[in-house]
Amino acid sequence: MQKIILTGDRPTGNLHLGHYVGSLKNRVQLQNTHKQYIMIADTQALTDNFENPSKVTESVCEVMADYISVGIDPEISTIFIQSQVPELAELTMYYMNLVTLGRLQRNPTVKAEMQQKGYNDSIPIGFLCYPVSQAADITAFSADLVPVGEDQLPMIEQTNEIVRKFNSTYNTTYLKEVKPLIGNVGRLVGIDGKSKASKSLNNAIFLSDTPDDIKKKVFMMYTDPNHLKVSDPGAVDGNVVFDYLDAFHENREELDDLKSHYRSGGLGDTAIKNILNTTLQSLLEPIREIRSSLKKEELMEKLFYSTKIVRGLVGNRMEEIRDIIGIKYKNI
Amino acid sequence: MQKIILTGDRPTGNLHLGHYVGSLKNRVQLQNTHKQYIMIADTQALTDNFENPSKVTESVCEVMADYISVGIDPEISTIFIQSQVPELAELTMYYMNLVTLGRLQRNPTVKAEMQQKGYNDSIPIGFLCYPVSQAADITAFSADLVPVGEDQLPMIEQTNEIVRKFNSTYNTTYLKEVKPLIGNVGRLVGIDGKSKASKSLNNAIFLSDTPDDIKKKVFMMYTDPNHLKVSDPGAVDGNVVFDYLDAFHENREELDDLKSHYRSGGLGDTAIKNILNTTLQSLLEPIREIRSSLKKEELMEKLFYSTKIVRGLVGNRMEEIRDIIGIKYKNI
Repeated sequence: MQKIILTGDRPTGNLHLGHYVGSLKNRVQLQNTHKQYIMIADTQALTDNFENPSKVTESVCEVMADYISVGIDPEISTIFIQSQVPELAELTMYYMNLVTLGRLQRNPTVKAEMQQKGYNDSIPIGFLCYPVSQAADITAFSADLVPVGEDQLPMIEQTNEIVRKFNSTYNTTYLKEVKPLIGNVGRLVGIDGKSKASKSLNNAIFLSDTPDDIKKKVFMMYTDPNHLKVSDPGAVDGNVVFDYLDAFHENREELDDLKSHYRSGGLGDTAIKNILNTTLQSLLEPIREIRSSLKKEELMEKLFYSTKIVRGLVGNRMEEIRDIIGIKYKNI
Repeated sequence: MQKIILTGDRPTGNLHLGHYVGSLKNRVQLQNTHKQYIMIADTQALTDNFENPSKVTESVCEVMADYISVGIDPEISTIFIQSQVPELAELTMYYMNLVTLGRLQRNPTVKAEMQQKGYNDSIPIGFLCYPVSQAADITAFSADLVPVGEDQLPMIEQTNEIVRKFNSTYNTTYLKEVKPLIGNVGRLVGIDGKSKASKSLNNAIFLSDTPDDIKKKVFMMYTDPNHLKVSDPGAVDGNVVFDYLDAFHENREELDDLKSHYRSGGLGDTAIKNILNTTLQSLLEPIREIRSSLKKEELMEKLFYSTKIVRGLVGNRMEEIRDIIGIKYKNI
């Protein structure tokens, strides 16, 4: 039997090249070897966007379009909208009895995000609890694997703690622990070279960007500030153009040649930017073409259909879980 | 139009005389003048009984039997099981985005209960969040009034804060604030005179107690330790027998005479206990008789039926709320 994967994205904007190398590309592969569920996590996105729900809901269809345009096949992968499966909220409530306040406050991922957002005890309780909600998502699908970055490993550990606590409290082996599937491609840096590519920092190249946008962003990229003349030797490490070439250039040999040429001097920034531009244009053109052929209504139809299937599946599982906890009185 | 009341109990055991004077008796009156919803709050009871779910689930039917035997009419009042309306969990999740950790930690009712249970940061996050869950319950029914004790006023305030925050965040007047309905009868003291009557302290007279149990408990009651001989003057204040007579004796004049007699000396503890015993037996006999005529299966049928109605009602309301938040994509 195929192993089950749960993965997904917070719909807070269109997806970009960071998503592509970090997860989307892998999903296109994984869908052939695994049973892959992909959650568009609108409920989770609302925990820190509750004042701007339209940003979240309007992104749902965009994210779906991004998925399909990169090659995720909605006939093979099961894509669904989190909020439309309210059984996930119900399961979260039961898991919340099994996790202490202190444990959530010590979760390194939560701590880092609290610091980043400047929360202390002003943190919305929903945001503090999102690792519990994630545990509900993962176990509702009985997932074997969850693709994560290194920084998200504490979330997997939190889920497995809940699994063990549930199983020991209710004397069962029903829930199973999940394993992280750590991607081999790290996070993609933003075009400013300062941090990872993200919509909120406005330093990302989107899958839906026009050819002009792409070119403009490539030519804005940070290179080596000491590489003033073409003849100067240039640094490859910390050079955003080479970071992107590493991630997207398909001919490794050619890329190695470019790097030595740049290091020894004689290769200009314009030249490498032109190469990167060509690389990205040929990657993104077919994606953009598929994207432009998609109809919003059809996308939403597909999403509604598979969400309905997911709801049935999670509903059945929730009934079994209620039964194990002992709060199933009768089918009503 | 009748005002809407939401009330209920945590099913953690049979109901006792403390419940009777504190709420049940009022509900029998209120059901004729208000639209009364009565929630058997099993999900909430699980927040601090998650390790012993059968205690909760087995009490559901007992509580229902208690309701009917005191005269709550399930054809007039709508009684339902909280866990079987999972939309309440869903609404709780959305409200959790509107409440900060600090606010919950400062809630006086939560603080007092944390202290009582010896929780610090070992508090289960579900328990810390139960005021949010209560706000979901109250607003899901659009309740005008919630009967509470003085000590629960902070819970009403918490609900109204969420109402205001929701309305201002989503630019609506959809949710309305709720008013407390403070009972005129205070809490009933336990037969040990030490604290309020409660199942966990084993100091309560249950509606389902046998005549022998009742008599035994009345004769165990704490009176005035300085009232050694019948001829001694006795204290009425702090005397549990008189606390109960105050709550249950129907003839005020006769009771006043008894009090002066006891105060001046010449009235023995056995005599007043016999009077109280007669009072309680005649109160509880018809209740016990109705109780013994009830069939568990029929009770559960009634409960399932009205819970189904409630689920439809809350489901519709939840759809409207999703629409207001902006997370209603389409009917799926």
